[in-house]
Amino acid sequence: METIQVKGSKYNSVIYVGERLENLAKLIPGKGVFIITDSNIDRIYGNRLPPLPKFVVNPGEQSKTLLRLTEIYRWLLDSGADRNSFIVGIGGGVVCDITGFVASTYMRGVRFGFVATSLLAQVDASIGGKNGVNLDGYKNIVGTFNQPQFVICDTSLLKTLPETELSNGFAEMVKHALIADAPQFNILESNTNRLNTCDLELLDSLVASSVGVKASIVTADERESGERKKLNFGHTWGHAVEKVTGIPHGQAVSIGMAFASQLSAEKGLLTPDECHRITSLLIALNLPVSIKANTNNIFEALQRDKKRCSNAIDFILLEGIGKAVIKSLSLVEIKEFIERKYCY
Amino acid sequence: METIQVKGSKYNSVIYVGERLENLAKLIPGKGVFIITDSNIDRIYGNRLPPLPKFVVNPGEQSKTLLRLTEIYRWLLDSGADRNSFIVGIGGGVVCDITGFVASTYMRGVRFGFVATSLLAQVDASIGGKNGVNLDGYKNIVGTFNQPQFVICDTSLLKTLPETELSNGFAEMVKHALIADAPQFNILESNTNRLNTCDLELLDSLVASSVGVKASIVTADERESGERKKLNFGHTWGHAVEKVTGIPHGQAVSIGMAFASQLSAEKGLLTPDECHRITSLLIALNLPVSIKANTNNIFEALQRDKKRCSNAIDFILLEGIGKAVIKSLSLVEIKEFIERKYCY
Repeated sequence: METIQVKGSKYNSVIYVGERLENLAKLIPGKGVFIITDSNIDRIYGNRLPPLPKFVVNPGEQSKTLLRLTEIYRWLLDSGADRNSFIVGIGGGVVCDITGFVASTYMRGVRFGFVATSLLAQVDASIGGKNGVNLDGYKNIVGTFNQPQFVICDTSLLKTLPETELSNGFAEMVKHALIADAPQFNILESNTNRLNTCDLELLDSLVASSVGVKASIVTADERESGERKKLNFGHTWGHAVEKVTGIPHGQAVSIGMAFASQLSAEKGLLTPDECHRITSLLIALNLPVSIKANTNNIFEALQRDKKRCSNAIDFILLEGIGKAVIKSLSLVEIKEFIERKYCY
Repeated sequence: METIQVKGSKYNSVIYVGERLENLAKLIPGKGVFIITDSNIDRIYGNRLPPLPKFVVNPGEQSKTLLRLTEIYRWLLDSGADRNSFIVGIGGGVVCDITGFVASTYMRGVRFGFVATSLLAQVDASIGGKNGVNLDGYKNIVGTFNQPQFVICDTSLLKTLPETELSNGFAEMVKHALIADAPQFNILESNTNRLNTCDLELLDSLVASSVGVKASIVTADERESGERKKLNFGHTWGHAVEKVTGIPHGQAVSIGMAFASQLSAEKGLLTPDECHRITSLLIALNLPVSIKANTNNIFEALQRDKKRCSNAIDFILLEGIGKAVIKSLSLVEIKEFIERKYCY
């Protein structure tokens, strides 16, 4: 097992990679603990959870609403939760996002922790203290920054994960390697078969390195005023693709990373060979690097990006594998690049 | 004008006592500013507010709901508010509570400030960074701790305040003097007539001292783990009275302060003369010190107090005027005191 620290402005997190769900009891108080989970987790692992009061949401983004929050607050009140209570979220990104927000606002904030059950949650969603719910189709419009006290990343839970969910997580692991950890990229490149068959020993060590990248970036810039923006690599074009086509987040990010790598190569920051290695790795991990869709619509969605500032966008590019840079690009040059290189 | 600082864990506040509403424009950014206010303020002062997008809530506690928040989030989204936006709450405690929570959670937190228009908001609700909304009759169940960037306490706005509202504020001013500022108590005692006629010059200086007491307590203990509990003086019995009888907050706190003073005298912490001075000042400020109600019901409500810990309550008592102490009292001894001294 490896432990990694995230230092937040208010609280610190300890991430336990390779710890097992069964050891959750060691990390929580003896009383006043409440669980939030989803029905998939409850069905598969319900009998391995400690016998504590439990709120079960439906899986998926549709649970991230203010209405669902209201039901959870009411359940906590009715169950006698007070300022000394402790909330544990057991699930993927959606459960972590909901739990983090509820715990940050119930009675002005109670302590909380996560058991991250999906690969995406283990390397990304559970780490860094962002939480929130959606409103009218806009993602994470209502939320806070607040670090959980602990995160358990139990890789043995990944065995029951659908293949698409696994590659969603791989996309974020490739991202972390690309923006800040070149040796990690080499290891991923040499081990795609073992990753695709969910080799636990390898996953433990790779999840730990991947969490390490995110933890150090978040510790340096919790509220995304600078360095943390690099974690948006692949997400600018990726979010626009996701919005227009509705494909899963990891797949959209993969397409976005391929896009940003080609754009980096066009700018002379990345060699054609490096660019080729990136797309090859994504493909070997069962991730798409392009999609048949109307590029005009995607460009439209890009223009509505929150990171846009008048007629330019802060785009994350690569200056070689393992080093991200933030460049302000005009909408005009992005449009020209798309017309020259992309014919979705 | 006097300025007072509150140092929070994330942000600091500057409180401007005696500043005028008209100078709000000097404290806010040139663009991206949104106002939240209530219909009373909008009716009386609407033409003195800067011409900015404005959300108007109904006055009173019934606006502090998750449903109203949802409408405000949606309005911000539709109006194009982004992470760089700034929200100003202009109103009393309810508007400050709503604005603080919306600003702390919209897009994971935007900057905000207050113009406090009631005396209660000026000396209490706007200061200290507590915000929140109610759920199913439970007060401030959903909220955060987060300091506004500034608070304007424009005492000239108090001229239009109903008399009950004014005495609600006096109750909190007396409280601040009693727990930490004996000289302030003497000044209040010698100036009840000028206070009741809303003498602005006197109010400016008294509001500033009162804010000073709260600011220094909050700076020492933002999240109420120790020292800040002293601000609950008069509120333990007071909240129970408020819950059972439905009288205004300030009146209930006044009754609660009289109760806690008598209890302090009973314990030998306060002399009978000091106790008499306290009740006389409250009466001179048009505040009640007792009420006809069923003491059994009030005691029942007290037992459900959030500050209760098994069979004892952290009660704030006075060790002389100007010095609060926190004492853990058993429910049994409180009950005996009530039976001996109180015959509501």
